[in-house]
Amino acid sequence: MTDGQVTRLLNVRPWGGDPVDIHLEAESITRITPHSPDEAVAPADRRGTVDGRGLLALPGFINAHAHIDKSWWGKPWVSYGGETSTQGRIAHERAHRDELGIPGVEPTVEVLRQMLRTGTTAVRTHVDVDTGIGLRGLDVVREAVAAVDGAVEVHIVAFPQDGVLRRPGVLDLLDTAAQQGAQYIGGLDPAGIDRDPVGQLDALFDIAERRGVGIDIHLHDGGELGLFEMELIVDRTRRTGLGGRVNVAHGFAVGQIDTARQADLVASFADAEVSMTTVAPPRVAPLPLRTLRSAQVPVGLGTDGIRDLWSPFGDGDLLTLARQLAQLSGFRRDEELVDAVRVTSTDAASFVGRDVHDLVEGARADIVLVDAENPADALVRAPRRELVIAGGRVVADARVVTG
Amino acid sequence: MTDGQVTRLLNVRPWGGDPVDIHLEAESITRITPHSPDEAVAPADRRGTVDGRGLLALPGFINAHAHIDKSWWGKPWVSYGGETSTQGRIAHERAHRDELGIPGVEPTVEVLRQMLRTGTTAVRTHVDVDTGIGLRGLDVVREAVAAVDGAVEVHIVAFPQDGVLRRPGVLDLLDTAAQQGAQYIGGLDPAGIDRDPVGQLDALFDIAERRGVGIDIHLHDGGELGLFEMELIVDRTRRTGLGGRVNVAHGFAVGQIDTARQADLVASFADAEVSMTTVAPPRVAPLPLRTLRSAQVPVGLGTDGIRDLWSPFGDGDLLTLARQLAQLSGFRRDEELVDAVRVTSTDAASFVGRDVHDLVEGARADIVLVDAENPADALVRAPRRELVIAGGRVVADARVVTG
Repeated sequence: MTDGQVTRLLNVRPWGGDPVDIHLEAESITRITPHSPDEAVAPADRRGTVDGRGLLALPGFINAHAHIDKSWWGKPWVSYGGETSTQGRIAHERAHRDELGIPGVEPTVEVLRQMLRTGTTAVRTHVDVDTGIGLRGLDVVREAVAAVDGAVEVHIVAFPQDGVLRRPGVLDLLDTAAQQGAQYIGGLDPAGIDRDPVGQLDALFDIAERRGVGIDIHLHDGGELGLFEMELIVDRTRRTGLGGRVNVAHGFAVGQIDTARQADLVASFADAEVSMTTVAPPRVAPLPLRTLRSAQVPVGLGTDGIRDLWSPFGDGDLLTLARQLAQLSGFRRDEELVDAVRVTSTDAASFVGRDVHDLVEGARADIVLVDAENPADALVRAPRRELVIAGGRVVADARVVTG
Repeated sequence: MTDGQVTRLLNVRPWGGDPVDIHLEAESITRITPHSPDEAVAPADRRGTVDGRGLLALPGFINAHAHIDKSWWGKPWVSYGGETSTQGRIAHERAHRDELGIPGVEPTVEVLRQMLRTGTTAVRTHVDVDTGIGLRGLDVVREAVAAVDGAVEVHIVAFPQDGVLRRPGVLDLLDTAAQQGAQYIGGLDPAGIDRDPVGQLDALFDIAERRGVGIDIHLHDGGELGLFEMELIVDRTRRTGLGGRVNVAHGFAVGQIDTARQADLVASFADAEVSMTTVAPPRVAPLPLRTLRSAQVPVGLGTDGIRDLWSPFGDGDLLTLARQLAQLSGFRRDEELVDAVRVTSTDAASFVGRDVHDLVEGARADIVLVDAENPADALVRAPRRELVIAGGRVVADARVVTG
């Protein structure tokens, strides 16, 4: 990985459009001008000038649902074991994480580096908080982010993976995490795990209101139960005025109902300003992406865990995951394929607290270059990332790192 | 792409085992010995010696269901258009293939090169045969195979994409194709497209019996209808003694029935020696891979079309497709992940007329090297192919081709 401030990125095609020169200052894009061949040969300060060779430029990818604190990426292979149910995975993880040094700064840095290599420049990550490790995971993640000089902008969800109400002490941990700068507190299947949907949700919304943080709830509960919990979440979001800061992750139940009920539910999400994140799981009915988009409900795409005690799958590459989302959603037409790229870039701005995330003046200079004709081509081939710029600095360069 | 006969491939780990030296002669693996460090520095004939650097070695991938004659790979982007039904796709393709130069030698060569680059060394391909283009596609494919010096071993299915009985003249074309060396004749939804399941199947089995070729039938027809057609196929396979040479491609109906009926159907396939191929479609209930494997019904994995008028998806990479198959099948344990790799290599031998396809003495020297710890690791990361050897020759070398 190289590291250098970029001041001019010449001859790139944002979203497949005409070639432009992008001018940067510190972390930001300051100006975009039509590509001038003269610019390329100007004698001025060649340091900081990058020749984009006419490559396709996309905004850095935003991973809206990750678990960067508990991966074994970079370590020797760990075979999958334990039971496959959610509770089985929780138990398996708690039994084996210590021997893998989870949570640990080093593997978290490995994950962040892999993300940068594949073009991800901002992440909303859930970080396990429980009575076993307390808030240690939050420190681990912050140290890891510092170790990559903040190249990946990380927003933290203090995540009660082992349950909330059923584990006395966890609510206090979430409260403390919120005080100590976690941007969100998490929840997990209020019915399925805690056996008390109203209880868990009331407790989470209480903390969020008092501490001024958001809420991001893992909701695997399916069918009518999952839907009921979403209605509870919508009600509480309206009542507390937390609109814009509440997210339902997974939300499998939404894919399980008919389109008329989906439309009603999505309308209530839009009205209450509740967003959704998905990890595009291959064996689950997909979220109705078009319905959500046309109702302007923000939808984010995430990797979920990457090589952890939940699953050996995952390589952190959001572009291949966007392709998977497109395939699962039955997308084929150009505008649909571009939408899938937008889900993992421009459209995901709010998941990492940004107003704007795009290749435009004033935005953070997060830029991915690929050798592709247009965004649809980039999506279906998911080619190598030729160059990744995060916050104005080169963080991955395929021409240098060929190993 | 480089091109050179390999005589010794030193220090590779077949299937993640101990390092060995693989000795080759012409197209074949002649001897495998434990890796000897002395061997590496022996002064003898360094030409033909490749240092495998301890990389993981897998057998070349076998694509059991492709359409290499009608891709626009290597051409400018072609937007998806037309209706999404099977009949809609057929019509769209017939309306637009000419303007794309399909079928054509050049794009077919491009596809074969992309396959080699990603480690595929043998392909069973369907080649469109219809009253519009006659048998021209078969010549195109043969020319393209010759253009890559036969590096990819290609078995041909003369494929009546536009229907059989409903298009007078197509049966004669299939008959001629069989006489002219096509290894299989194809069929397509005898009920859904031809509206006459018995009629199409009787006609196909008649040609196959007379000409001594196999049959490979596309069967998208779902539910009871698809099952009924499979029963007809099993009956005719038994009656004609064509066992071992009849394949059902897609077979969506199999994924749609309960496990008891699946078990009965799979048992009849095993008894009649009917095989199955899948392209691991993301929106269709997957084939019961474990049931099929334990009944010893051969199952092959294929890419389907790659960037054609049916879909803009596809890049020819069977390792990422095997990962998709594993994810769709809910595979997570090591042995399951390795099974997914076997489906696209050793287990697929019969789909390209081989008794054995593996890293063993006597086998064709089709070898893929990747920088992975073990086959499960290779599956879930699908890393770059470092070196691909097909029929004893280097056909792709990432260290040379870094662009």
